[in-house]
Amino acid sequence: MSEITRFGVSLRSTLLEQFDELIEEKGYSNRSEAIRDLIRNRLVEEKWAQEDVEVVGAISLLYSHDVRELTHRLTEFEHDHHVAIISKMHIHLNEHNCLEILAVRGLASEVREIAEKLISTKGVKHGKLIMTTMGEGLA
Amino acid sequence: MSEITRFGVSLRSTLLEQFDELIEEKGYSNRSEAIRDLIRNRLVEEKWAQEDVEVVGAISLLYSHDVRELTHRLTEFEHDHHVAIISKMHIHLNEHNCLEILAVRGLASEVREIAEKLISTKGVKHGKLIMTTMGEGLA
Amino acid sequence: MSEITRFGVSLRSTLLEQFDELIEEKGYSNRSEAIRDLIRNRLVEEKWAQEDVEVVGAISLLYSHDVRELTHRLTEFEHDHHVAIISKMHIHLNEHNCLEILAVRGLASEVREIAEKLISTKGVKHGKLIMTTMGEGLA
Amino acid sequence: MSEITRFGVSLRSTLLEQFDELIEEKGYSNRSEAIRDLIRNRLVEEKWAQEDVEVVGAISLLYSHDVRELTHRLTEFEHDHHVAIISKMHIHLNEHNCLEILAVRGLASEVREIAEKLISTKGVKHGKLIMTTMGEGLA
Repeated sequence: MSEITRFGVSLRSTLLEQFDELIEEKGYSNRSEAIRDLIRNRLVEEKWAQEDVEVVGAISLLYSHDVRELTHRLTEFEHDHHVAIISKMHIHLNEHNCLEILAVRGLASEVREIAEKLISTKGVKHGKLIMTTMGEGLA
Repeated sequence: MSEITRFGVSLRSTLLEQFDELIEEKGYSNRSEAIRDLIRNRLVEEKWAQEDVEVVGAISLLYSHDVRELTHRLTEFEHDHHVAIISKMHIHLNEHNCLEILAVRGLASEVREIAEKLISTKGVKHGKLIMTTMGEGLA
Repeated sequence: MSEITRFGVSLRSTLLEQFDELIEEKGYSNRSEAIRDLIRNRLVEEKWAQEDVEVVGAISLLYSHDVRELTHRLTEFEHDHHVAIISKMHIHLNEHNCLEILAVRGLASEVREIAEKLISTKGVKHGKLIMTTMGEGLA
Repeated sequence: MSEITRFGVSLRSTLLEQFDELIEEKGYSNRSEAIRDLIRNRLVEEKWAQEDVEVVGAISLLYSHDVRELTHRLTEFEHDHHVAIISKMHIHLNEHNCLEILAVRGLASEVREIAEKLISTKGVKHGKLIMTTMGEGLA
């Protein structure tokens, strides 16, 4: 891991007061931690805007296991993309509905496409993609 | 499950042509499926804007297991919220970084607060919240 | 303008009931209008994801006219991009703060870059970009 | 205006290097300016999540002036809300389409409702809301 460095931020005291209120409310332990989070968020957004960088996505799929063949169709698609799909979690929300969450690694365009295909599968009620990364350089 | 119903949508043919291109590209099997997805997405968004409705969230947390005490602190917090936290998945992305994904159920405000606390924990590099629901009525 | 066409959407009646509640609450006059809005929104999003398509952006800039040279610097930058910047509106929010809104036309990447440069100008307190289009085909 | 204050941020040098690249690319003049932008953005988001705080919104409306009665209906609605609507700009994008941008001031819930009503008006092709503020305390 790289060494810790330090830099100063100058701003009006009224702005700092409001920021201090916010970070207390959100549970941050100190300003540096809150600033680092803002910076990392911005960097992850930027990574997803690039073409040829490896990213990680978490895809949520909400569906009813009553839909005939759906589980089977999803599983088959997932197997075809087993290199990109790192892992998956399946939750029985209630009698009918399941939440499935997949962790997927690849180029931003690939992860987006896998998410779109899964979310557009007939019978999937709701799906979303979280865009995150492998964490390199975000230390 | 409730019965299937049907309604007509009128629009300019140029708009429909563009929509047909989009749904083919995204892999939808037919227009109804694509329209249902747009409707469900809108309904889920609306649910999260209400105060007293039960929702489901998927929280992603990216962190390095090298950070002393972090895993321990996260686990402790998660235990304190074991009623809301349904399940969790842990992925070893590489030598240092882990991706943890939690499925959380509760009122929108509760799920948001749990997400904020976890994401603001010192050492968590990046975190995001997917807002979804238990699926009731989204059939 | 192209002719009106019509297609049917099939869905569960529970889903339709929820959608009908939503569109009444939001003030839509009928289902077709609400569906058209969902479709157009999706198409506009897609256009902004493409490289070589002309789009329109509305950029909001919040700043204090007390900041020395800021108005001058913004105006100069805007003049350098007068081909892209269609029009602008200036609002005196209170004694110190102004809201400036610019309408900008160009390729998505160009409009994004103009927005980024303006928003990152020293003294601009807050800025956002609305992504919309020239409206072709959205009839 | 309040006085300038200063605080230190500690972080790993690899994270700072990436941030420095980003701010150079985006055109920021220095780190403090970029950090202030991240802080203000976060504060504005938070303000819009509160119930009883005055905010400012910029609403974009894309429509064709060929639609009979639409301009009239929009103008009438806008007059009914003349206290909240500060100003408006109208742009002739091409032969058929207009872009109208309104600056609206009020409680977050009021501004959202005005935006929803305008965007859902029959004939409006696309509409979006920028959430910003009066700028108090964001100095």
